[in-house]
Amino acid sequence: MLNLVGVKRKALRSYEPLTDDDLIAEIRELASRLRGLRVLHLNSTAYGGGVAELLVSLVALEKDVGLDVEWRTMGEDEAFFKVTKRIHNALQGQPYDMTDEERATYLRCNEAAAGALNGQYDAVIVHDPQPAAVRHVAGRRGARWIWRCHIDTSEPDAGVWAFVEPYVEEHDAAVFTMAQFVPPGLAVSRLEFIPPAIDPLSSKNRDLPDDLARALVGEFGVDAERPLMVQVARFDPWKDPAGVIQAYRLVKAELPEVQLALIGSMAGDDPEAWEIYRGITETDRDDDLFVFTNLVGVGSLEVNCFQRASDVVIQKSLREGFGLAVSEGLWKRRPVIGGAAGGIPLQLQDGVGGYLVTTVEQCAERALYLLRHPEEARRVAEAGYQVVRRRFLMPRLLRDELRLLCDVTTGTSARRPEERVVR
Amino acid sequence: MLNLVGVKRKALRSYEPLTDDDLIAEIRELASRLRGLRVLHLNSTAYGGGVAELLVSLVALEKDVGLDVEWRTMGEDEAFFKVTKRIHNALQGQPYDMTDEERATYLRCNEAAAGALNGQYDAVIVHDPQPAAVRHVAGRRGARWIWRCHIDTSEPDAGVWAFVEPYVEEHDAAVFTMAQFVPPGLAVSRLEFIPPAIDPLSSKNRDLPDDLARALVGEFGVDAERPLMVQVARFDPWKDPAGVIQAYRLVKAELPEVQLALIGSMAGDDPEAWEIYRGITETDRDDDLFVFTNLVGVGSLEVNCFQRASDVVIQKSLREGFGLAVSEGLWKRRPVIGGAAGGIPLQLQDGVGGYLVTTVEQCAERALYLLRHPEEARRVAEAGYQVVRRRFLMPRLLRDELRLLCDVTTGTSARRPEERVVR
Repeated sequence: MLNLVGVKRKALRSYEPLTDDDLIAEIRELASRLRGLRVLHLNSTAYGGGVAELLVSLVALEKDVGLDVEWRTMGEDEAFFKVTKRIHNALQGQPYDMTDEERATYLRCNEAAAGALNGQYDAVIVHDPQPAAVRHVAGRRGARWIWRCHIDTSEPDAGVWAFVEPYVEEHDAAVFTMAQFVPPGLAVSRLEFIPPAIDPLSSKNRDLPDDLARALVGEFGVDAERPLMVQVARFDPWKDPAGVIQAYRLVKAELPEVQLALIGSMAGDDPEAWEIYRGITETDRDDDLFVFTNLVGVGSLEVNCFQRASDVVIQKSLREGFGLAVSEGLWKRRPVIGGAAGGIPLQLQDGVGGYLVTTVEQCAERALYLLRHPEEARRVAEAGYQVVRRRFLMPRLLRDELRLLCDVTTGTSARRPEERVVR
Repeated sequence: MLNLVGVKRKALRSYEPLTDDDLIAEIRELASRLRGLRVLHLNSTAYGGGVAELLVSLVALEKDVGLDVEWRTMGEDEAFFKVTKRIHNALQGQPYDMTDEERATYLRCNEAAAGALNGQYDAVIVHDPQPAAVRHVAGRRGARWIWRCHIDTSEPDAGVWAFVEPYVEEHDAAVFTMAQFVPPGLAVSRLEFIPPAIDPLSSKNRDLPDDLARALVGEFGVDAERPLMVQVARFDPWKDPAGVIQAYRLVKAELPEVQLALIGSMAGDDPEAWEIYRGITETDRDDDLFVFTNLVGVGSLEVNCFQRASDVVIQKSLREGFGLAVSEGLWKRRPVIGGAAGGIPLQLQDGVGGYLVTTVEQCAERALYLLRHPEEARRVAEAGYQVVRRRFLMPRLLRDELRLLCDVTTGTSARRPEERVVR
């Protein structure tokens, strides 16, 4: 079964004031060459998590510039979600002994997806490991097949990677966020590196009045007059919520008025998150420590408000595909403390946007520094904002993906040699 | 186990511009008599559903005016949630054969709650059937006990009511939304009727720029240029989502550009909702029919945006405690079509706020009428707005509850005979 996801209406025109003219011109030029190209995006879920969020905007813009684009998801299957969550974690490095039954579940769902595939496409973009075997089962069908990996697969569990790798290698191209993420030994015809991006016009990122942001966090019990640290991340060990809480306690010892808000959306394919959430809320209670989810009325606009009302944005990931919340924080001109993991250093360097940290103590020290030096915090945040404006907004991602589609469907290179994709 | 819920900071002062001076004066006067009164609110959950939403604001305002108020919830227990959901439905009239084991589960959790009660209170307000036996187990403990029923218990399942009634009758007062909701035969020392209210300053109801509302619904794929019907309600058979969809189809046959958005928050204590949600999304697909939950980034601000961007608000409940979404829609000056059930006729009469309906066909006919007569729709909505302003905002509820607390704790009546609580 494959569910068709409704494609939203978005206009590239609306993004023009936010980005550079030559980027928009290049998109228009690429799009004129690709007009009517039949593209299928295939992933596991239409909601929850960064990939779905990214596709909502990217697919809409591809449609707006003239591609004949569809987005389909693999449908709901509890057993499949469980297995692929484990595969996801294993490809990020967590040891995992996959059973024969789990392999069978994975293949059964990929076979069902392949069997439901009945459109004609010029290109199929398969996102992440969940649908990675669809190409194998379905055959080429006259399309070019692209595997788009959004996670850090630099040190995958060997057994799980050995299972997934042959399926990946049947694709015409594999795309990773950065070169460091390519698993050892991958042999694929074409390798590309394209980091994701945020949508500056989405409810998560659009401009909002400051008084709305302050009133909103006030309504959730946060004192908008006192310093606030915010981490927006799923409740996942890789996002290190426990480490963030420890860092907050160290900061609080020096600056008793500090508050921390952990905000996590419960994704549809994430049964583990509840356990971690319960662990935090039951053992770490504190009047200035807030834990919010989509279950208490926190949606995208609310996340936007919390980021805007924060004094320091934290993204203390231990392993990270990209960490969209870093760019989200910087786009709101907030200083960000990020874990030196995955795609975070692409968005953030020490002194440009905030600081990279590897330990709880560093995280606390940098947060305290930023909270005590608001002028410096503003300067650092502004520098990070400029980086995001140039490199991590949706039009740049659209441009990179159109280049890739030109390359794989026409066999010629759309890439101008002097203008490499950002690393 | 009893969880303490953090009480938010809200100031009665902020509500003054929105309501009448003499109401505020009466609140201040009552509060001066009740200063320091130790009040406990006890319910089953801190999030999801109207009761939790109401307590967030009410408890905060009671604290602001000087009461020593606490809010505690009964903690998480899957078996208890299941049983009490069934009791809830049975008290609303759904037949239900309660087993001995279910009775034991109910009593076990009430005993645990009573055992965890160790504060000294002047008044304990017990909300809904979940904690109704706590008074029985705990004994009086020097407090006055009030049972606050938020649902329509006019025709309860006889067996379930026979189980619950003796516990209810041990309270010093029972409060219902309206007189019609009192179950047959209830013998309790004092009966009060107090309808709930909405918080005009919450993120769900606060004023928002129109362009934000329109952009937000656009982002979710709704065409803000075309007519939009919106129902905000849990996915529950009593809210009749199936009937709303049928009415929408009838409207669409006449007015093909119409759109429908069903928005439901998945409450923590509501395991049934998922089944209904899946039923709708799998069988009723249509490009102009939208189903959104808190799982796709829809929080309180987003609900606010959807209500503001709608042309007609629907609340087609078949049975209803109160239907806060009716007042929410009217407060945003939207015309509302409501089921003639429970507390909805308190908020809405034909021509004042919108229309009351009992059938799918009536609902479609009224919606079509309002969509085709925008001037009349505006007039009707404005009349409804004035009703909500006078009768269904939080300060009026605070006043009524302070009156009741005066009555039960001092034994004297705080009620002025000429000024009855709204019916």
